[in-house]
Amino acid sequence: MPAPSIDVLRNLATQLRIDSVRSTSAAGSGHPTTCLSAADIVAALFFAEMRFDPHDPQHPEADRFVLSKGHGAPLLYAAWAAAGAFPREDLLRLRQLGSDLEGHPTPRLPFVDVATGSLGQGLCAAVGIALNARRIKSDYRTYALLGDGESAEGAVWEAAQAAAFHQLDNLCAITDVNGYGQSRATQWRHDAGAFVSRWMAFGWHVVSIDGHDIKAILDALAEGRRTAGRPTMIVAVTHKGKGVSLFENKDGWHGKPLKKGPETDAAIAELEAQYIQTADPPPSIPFPARRASEPPLPDFVTAAPAPSYQIGAMVATREAYGKALAALGALDRRVVALDADVKNSTYSEIFERQFPERFYQMFIAEQVMIGAAMGLASRGALPFPSTFACFLERASDFIRMAGISNVNIKMAGSHAGVSIGEDGPSQMALEDLALMRAVPNCTVLYPCDAVSAERLVAVAAATPGPVYLRTTRPKTPVLYDGSEMFPAGGSKTLRQGERDVATVVAAGITVFEALEAYDTLAAEGRPVRVIDAYSIQPIDRQALVAAARETGGRLITVEDHYVQGGLGDAVSAAVSEHGYRVCRLGIREIPRSGPPDALIDRYGISARAIVDAVRACV
Amino acid sequence: MPAPSIDVLRNLATQLRIDSVRSTSAAGSGHPTTCLSAADIVAALFFAEMRFDPHDPQHPEADRFVLSKGHGAPLLYAAWAAAGAFPREDLLRLRQLGSDLEGHPTPRLPFVDVATGSLGQGLCAAVGIALNARRIKSDYRTYALLGDGESAEGAVWEAAQAAAFHQLDNLCAITDVNGYGQSRATQWRHDAGAFVSRWMAFGWHVVSIDGHDIKAILDALAEGRRTAGRPTMIVAVTHKGKGVSLFENKDGWHGKPLKKGPETDAAIAELEAQYIQTADPPPSIPFPARRASEPPLPDFVTAAPAPSYQIGAMVATREAYGKALAALGALDRRVVALDADVKNSTYSEIFERQFPERFYQMFIAEQVMIGAAMGLASRGALPFPSTFACFLERASDFIRMAGISNVNIKMAGSHAGVSIGEDGPSQMALEDLALMRAVPNCTVLYPCDAVSAERLVAVAAATPGPVYLRTTRPKTPVLYDGSEMFPAGGSKTLRQGERDVATVVAAGITVFEALEAYDTLAAEGRPVRVIDAYSIQPIDRQALVAAARETGGRLITVEDHYVQGGLGDAVSAAVSEHGYRVCRLGIREIPRSGPPDALIDRYGISARAIVDAVRACV
Repeated sequence: MPAPSIDVLRNLATQLRIDSVRSTSAAGSGHPTTCLSAADIVAALFFAEMRFDPHDPQHPEADRFVLSKGHGAPLLYAAWAAAGAFPREDLLRLRQLGSDLEGHPTPRLPFVDVATGSLGQGLCAAVGIALNARRIKSDYRTYALLGDGESAEGAVWEAAQAAAFHQLDNLCAITDVNGYGQSRATQWRHDAGAFVSRWMAFGWHVVSIDGHDIKAILDALAEGRRTAGRPTMIVAVTHKGKGVSLFENKDGWHGKPLKKGPETDAAIAELEAQYIQTADPPPSIPFPARRASEPPLPDFVTAAPAPSYQIGAMVATREAYGKALAALGALDRRVVALDADVKNSTYSEIFERQFPERFYQMFIAEQVMIGAAMGLASRGALPFPSTFACFLERASDFIRMAGISNVNIKMAGSHAGVSIGEDGPSQMALEDLALMRAVPNCTVLYPCDAVSAERLVAVAAATPGPVYLRTTRPKTPVLYDGSEMFPAGGSKTLRQGERDVATVVAAGITVFEALEAYDTLAAEGRPVRVIDAYSIQPIDRQALVAAARETGGRLITVEDHYVQGGLGDAVSAAVSEHGYRVCRLGIREIPRSGPPDALIDRYGISARAIVDAVRACV
Repeated sequence: MPAPSIDVLRNLATQLRIDSVRSTSAAGSGHPTTCLSAADIVAALFFAEMRFDPHDPQHPEADRFVLSKGHGAPLLYAAWAAAGAFPREDLLRLRQLGSDLEGHPTPRLPFVDVATGSLGQGLCAAVGIALNARRIKSDYRTYALLGDGESAEGAVWEAAQAAAFHQLDNLCAITDVNGYGQSRATQWRHDAGAFVSRWMAFGWHVVSIDGHDIKAILDALAEGRRTAGRPTMIVAVTHKGKGVSLFENKDGWHGKPLKKGPETDAAIAELEAQYIQTADPPPSIPFPARRASEPPLPDFVTAAPAPSYQIGAMVATREAYGKALAALGALDRRVVALDADVKNSTYSEIFERQFPERFYQMFIAEQVMIGAAMGLASRGALPFPSTFACFLERASDFIRMAGISNVNIKMAGSHAGVSIGEDGPSQMALEDLALMRAVPNCTVLYPCDAVSAERLVAVAAATPGPVYLRTTRPKTPVLYDGSEMFPAGGSKTLRQGERDVATVVAAGITVFEALEAYDTLAAEGRPVRVIDAYSIQPIDRQALVAAARETGGRLITVEDHYVQGGLGDAVSAAVSEHGYRVCRLGIREIPRSGPPDALIDRYGISARAIVDAVRACV
């Protein structure tokens, strides 16, 4: 098929501009000027560069497009409508409740891989999408459109270096240098050189062009396709609001639609006058090559080998994590791992040793680690990104967007809590459960021993959507038999009697404190029920309510986490409509360096603290 | 005073190496190799470059040093001991419980401005410390020592561009290019050029040196001092573990102390042999110039002008925030504001118009915005960084470290909740309360109207430590008289009667839904108590317990936030030992774009939902 003529592409760009103005005016909100600066770039990409099937946007061989500047959503929607994915008139339902054409793109739309709209994230996802092409041995290409303003986000530079390190020559990004942010001119205005030097320094091939020159755009894209061994950045200087004289290249128009009526009508008339008379044939989008779709994932929970540990053996849950992950890797080639230069602490190195081609080292750059995992997951991989739990928080905003995207990522955070000891508070995750619980579709798992850790890795793989698995630094004794199963939403009752005076709900390292407290309390005639709440979200409401009912309505939660937002709040939420009393033991101040056991006691989550709490409440 | 000789500085570097080995061996943990690579740099900085008083490290005119590679803490401690700040033998208490010589530096130590140990943050704080010198018209200089591995963090590049944009020629950073990360060689190994080209592209003056050549280090520091209009980066190539042949320039030695006994003894003997015989005089550290210390801060709560709004007038809390912030700015020159290119949405532009020299535009780079605010606060400024609440989450890990640092930063997050409407979920903060509550020393405030917003801005200024203020996009009616006061930890009971059947606890936008629900319920003979919980942390436990006791032990919480980690959990924690029932209304799924009122109803936090909940529980 011949490539469409420049005139045809210019007319398509005009159409995208008209649709962007019309839909934002109809919605009464949105970002028309952001759309207009990039219309020529998107027209060239969609109608003369990318291979895809508008009616099967998730085709595994289709080229991918990530709109990192997510507020340009109306332009994206206009492009897919122009490609035939849905009727153009649907664009007028932009931003209406019930329409999937939301203010910023989400994967509720079949042609969106990951949600964007939190700026500076799109290129991180694109890195993962490009890594996925290598994984499935496909030659699909990945394109990402960035705004100039969002280039201030550090995450963009994490993506830049990760793409260069992994030599992603199947990745081509375009920066729309329109010169304006939301509240003022960007710090670089139209200085293309500032972008060129940065991207070159980060190891990219760089092309600098006039972003309204269709021919230049096509040439630059072709140059990117020809470039081997490194990704390509096209620095495209544009005018914000291009084509509408009222706001073209003017400050103060960010995020402002034109008023319905004469203002909009005049803009559309001005744009319509830009159509070029041509008899050239319309574009014909090349379809991707055929490819057999991947089979369903195996049932990881039943397929994973049973853990084989001696009861009482001392094994760190983080080490069991690494072992179990490698076992999953043997079950399916879609299982991949990412790490942030701590593979010897998270034990993801066990996976790397067995599957080096499916292990992605992202160095100390947690945002691109999670972003790339989102991209990989959006294309069918099953990524396990891991680092210290506290450093996962560096990627909080990505995790928030992973929730909105509902991608299948399995985050593993090691070294949680004061039990890490001497390294001190900067290395202790004490708010990670709060963070992860606040992603409403995130499953939160927290094993206490090696058996539950191994089982929960398989559960994570088998559970759709984002999953967080929290592991511990010190070794803990193996508590469970290898045949035991740990479904999400379940719990284990470890001590139970008819005269239990209260229920102690623990998780992770505190399970062992609770068991020790049980011995003391039982000896003094105050037996307690002990529950291992290994599934923090969803939590085992039924078991908790039953236990509280049978133990005088008294629950004591104990967690190696700040007392806010973690196990205590989760348990309390589960039982609070019944009016049971919940006494929360958890960390209540910024801790210090010290030996793990001393810290566990000092901050009130030791067996002694549990015994005191039970005595006080009974 | 003459500068110390090179031989003296080399001997000091040897002493720092010996102390770093000895203290980590005594502790049985820590990162000796990380210390040894940077010992020459730190010796030169402390004993031939910086002006400071070891016995008054917080002197306002003293040069500042930020150890961004916080795991090099033993080196930092050794340097301060060598300078005379405390006895050298104290170094052997490294990492012991009760010693302030923790695993990573915290401001529990008088010579530490901000906690480090989460990599990639130090330069962001240094930007704020350097901005502070300009604020107080001081010529103190700010130094930051970075690791090469941490240069992978995007936050480093946010700091790079902010320092260049603000032309911070009083800032000099050094990158210790020792070639190794934790788990492997860095992606750049000893390629100094990779660093030089990046920092130059980001607008810095760059000097590349052998980081073990004391003369070269001194010359580079002098070159930095002479450089006008831009910050200086010294790229210093070093050997990790320098001076100890067992681990010098070898992989696999990160974070591993030498074994006590022969291994440590041999290393110390090897280092001691590196002392040079010299009769040159010991160093004499130049003291900073005298300066009157700043007066105490005013009592902002009483000094701030009373809000002047008509009851019932429609005003957005974010706009009241901007107005109140400008009023505080007039009260004290230490009040400064930072924003991330949304000043026209957060209304920090009102402050900028009045005090442009105290307004720092950080563009779309929330990590350096919070990091710079931490640095400013550590030097006596009272910074108010603001952006959309959801984008503050980009800086979650910085906020975590701000808690550990206990710095006086006042974070303002606008556009919280589904009430933003059509922009969709990526722009809605629905987990910010969970995040901020999980910083145990963070005060969390959430005004519902313009009067409480103005008052709470003053309360934020007057409350020590980190404070978070959550504001709303839509206008809300003014509810309170301008004379009303809103102390942290308080609440307002808005509806109260003797026959109240339940208590509805609301905050922010849901206060108005609760009041509307009250009208419906009162009309049907089911009056409820209505509480405005404007202080989420600390929360008004006493008022909540009393209200619950007087209204049948029934509490209904309603919040424009996910149901996890926010108001409902805070209220539940406050009353749970009493066994009252708490019914939580909050967002339970990822929301969509739509009109604010429609979203509030659809996601179950409207007056209708409250009425239903009260009917169901009574």
